[in-house]
Amino acid sequence: MRVLIAGIDGYLGWPLSLHLLNRGHEVGGIDNFFRRKWVEEVGSHSAIPIGTMSERLTASNDSFGGKPSFWEGDLRDYRFVERVFRKFQPDSIVQFGECPSAPYSMIDVNHAVFVQANNITTTFNLLFAMRDLCPHAHLVKLGTMGEYGTPNIDIPEGFFEIEFRGRRDTLPFPKQAGSWYHWSKVHGSNNVMFACRIWNLRATDVMQGVVFGTRTEEIRDERLTTRFDFDQAFGTAVNRYCAEAVIGHALTPYGKGHQRRGFLPLRDSMQCLRLAVEKPPTQGEYRVLNQFEEVYDVTELAVKVQKAAASIGFPVEVRNLENPRKEPEEHYYHPDHKNLFDLGYKPTHDVDTELKSMLKDLVKYRSRIEDKKAALIPDVRWDGRREKVRFL
Amino acid sequence: MRVLIAGIDGYLGWPLSLHLLNRGHEVGGIDNFFRRKWVEEVGSHSAIPIGTMSERLTASNDSFGGKPSFWEGDLRDYRFVERVFRKFQPDSIVQFGECPSAPYSMIDVNHAVFVQANNITTTFNLLFAMRDLCPHAHLVKLGTMGEYGTPNIDIPEGFFEIEFRGRRDTLPFPKQAGSWYHWSKVHGSNNVMFACRIWNLRATDVMQGVVFGTRTEEIRDERLTTRFDFDQAFGTAVNRYCAEAVIGHALTPYGKGHQRRGFLPLRDSMQCLRLAVEKPPTQGEYRVLNQFEEVYDVTELAVKVQKAAASIGFPVEVRNLENPRKEPEEHYYHPDHKNLFDLGYKPTHDVDTELKSMLKDLVKYRSRIEDKKAALIPDVRWDGRREKVRFL
Repeated sequence: MRVLIAGIDGYLGWPLSLHLLNRGHEVGGIDNFFRRKWVEEVGSHSAIPIGTMSERLTASNDSFGGKPSFWEGDLRDYRFVERVFRKFQPDSIVQFGECPSAPYSMIDVNHAVFVQANNITTTFNLLFAMRDLCPHAHLVKLGTMGEYGTPNIDIPEGFFEIEFRGRRDTLPFPKQAGSWYHWSKVHGSNNVMFACRIWNLRATDVMQGVVFGTRTEEIRDERLTTRFDFDQAFGTAVNRYCAEAVIGHALTPYGKGHQRRGFLPLRDSMQCLRLAVEKPPTQGEYRVLNQFEEVYDVTELAVKVQKAAASIGFPVEVRNLENPRKEPEEHYYHPDHKNLFDLGYKPTHDVDTELKSMLKDLVKYRSRIEDKKAALIPDVRWDGRREKVRFL
Repeated sequence: MRVLIAGIDGYLGWPLSLHLLNRGHEVGGIDNFFRRKWVEEVGSHSAIPIGTMSERLTASNDSFGGKPSFWEGDLRDYRFVERVFRKFQPDSIVQFGECPSAPYSMIDVNHAVFVQANNITTTFNLLFAMRDLCPHAHLVKLGTMGEYGTPNIDIPEGFFEIEFRGRRDTLPFPKQAGSWYHWSKVHGSNNVMFACRIWNLRATDVMQGVVFGTRTEEIRDERLTTRFDFDQAFGTAVNRYCAEAVIGHALTPYGKGHQRRGFLPLRDSMQCLRLAVEKPPTQGEYRVLNQFEEVYDVTELAVKVQKAAASIGFPVEVRNLENPRKEPEEHYYHPDHKNLFDLGYKPTHDVDTELKSMLKDLVKYRSRIEDKKAALIPDVRWDGRREKVRFL
């Protein structure tokens, strides 16, 4: 298949391009390198150094005898998107070309507007290009489990049948996102669902859990690594804990630390996304996949990281930080995740081994984490104040 | 109260400013006159001529001994919004500053992006200005009944309690909008709901039905009239039928014509919006009001307009047009509308008298409608084609 990855330079985009190449697909990619700038803007960098795109492409060629076709440009520019579509003629488009950070979107009015306008516009441009240039292609849009929030009932995959006042209907499950970023993903999901309905397009909306890890089957040497963020804005829970562990910093769940979320290792994310690409829904279908392996509370995971770190010689505490977010810290959480298993997903069950391998990868880059350790502790608060949180 | 109307130059904005002035409120207004440009862009103009803003303000002064404070500017410019908020210090902000047309948003990718980005950004700027400058003010956001779509179950006002797999929760009612414009209103509603939750702001989201009419209590003479659009993009069902009737054009429901919608006369919309302003929710509350008087199918209303027109000497046919939209043309529709009645809404029950008075107002401007009658027949189709629809 010809798979176009929008946002190929990111944490998921780059390893997915290698994974798909390695499986015999033809890969194209688009990026404007915004992720590198955003992380710099919040005072950080990738713990694991990554090459320029041209170095990455050369490394891909050396390892896999092939490389993605790459177009540098901004997905918000429709003429550019059209040019790439005409040239590459994708069978499948993977939409990673959005700003993926909740805290970044909460900085101020300019960031809130930027994140929502950017994320809506990039997806619109892909949808219109599909309608006009490749109506049979399949859009795989990266969503997030965070779109659902934490309702007091089970979370189905996208839709549910309900009875209300004696009548029944199958409706989209109500979303209760927790940041301007998460809402931008809801807005995008709604737009994609509508495009499928009116234009008979097909799409898979991947409600992804929190991804952690440094490795995939294809990341064989240092030239092929993907970025690894640990700052307050782009570093997610487990990755941030691991970065903390290797510099001897306490692991920092927010608030009570009983927030429950779905998690999955990076290698599983690749597998799931590939399954979504290789097994598209039928024309006109808007398919929702909840993508995670297991649900944990964020303290359980901190304790797992703590044990793995101790076993390789890095004893650290778990110390809860004041929560910069406004979110329930103890709640019911029971999302379905059946659809990906039906497509053939075989999860990596051994989280502890995964954590140890991550920690070993990160040990080499301790000084890079140390250099930017101020970026670990949040100062972007959901109430609008910009002030570092304290230990509880 | 000090009420700031964003979009004061529009169909609802101008008469609401007069209505609130007449009730003793202090009124401020913002506009960048985009509505006038959009209607021109789609090849039309207001059937009833309206003055420039400075003529309108003078007329207001002459009739009511007072006028709104007016700021010309773009709500997408946060510095401008801040300046107006500091100067006017609103107790209440009415958000009409969005692009209100489904067909306009469906023209092409640029219009889709413009409508969603404009509508999201203007509301964001108001929310952030409220948070930082007047956290006790009340936002009255104009939404639309079209956000809900036409589910096969009753439509509550914003939220509903449901049971799913043996557990219960109160959740936002799932939205199923029918155009990029309608989705922009859903995105905005979601953003406002979230701002109330994290910043303890208060807001009323008015899910307004289709408004028709030329008159309010305060529109006493020609200098005080509000605009009246009849083109495919900005003219809504009943208003368009009335414009058709006075030039002897067939009345044109789309498709089968059994789409059911909530409707209300312009004078009732003013009353409802004033009630929402004068009776704000408590701090932190996101309140949803479904605002309409009664549900009709669009053919029933065409027949009512036909009768009213015949009674004043304008016999016309009702002839269905091919439907340019993708929407169910026969469906269940049973939305609640209790909250506004609880606030004291007294509806105008006499739709027939209202229609006759509209028709008489429009008769004077027959030649203006005749001049732009090509704009009556849709050519913006939901499937992306730009091609005039035909009579069925």
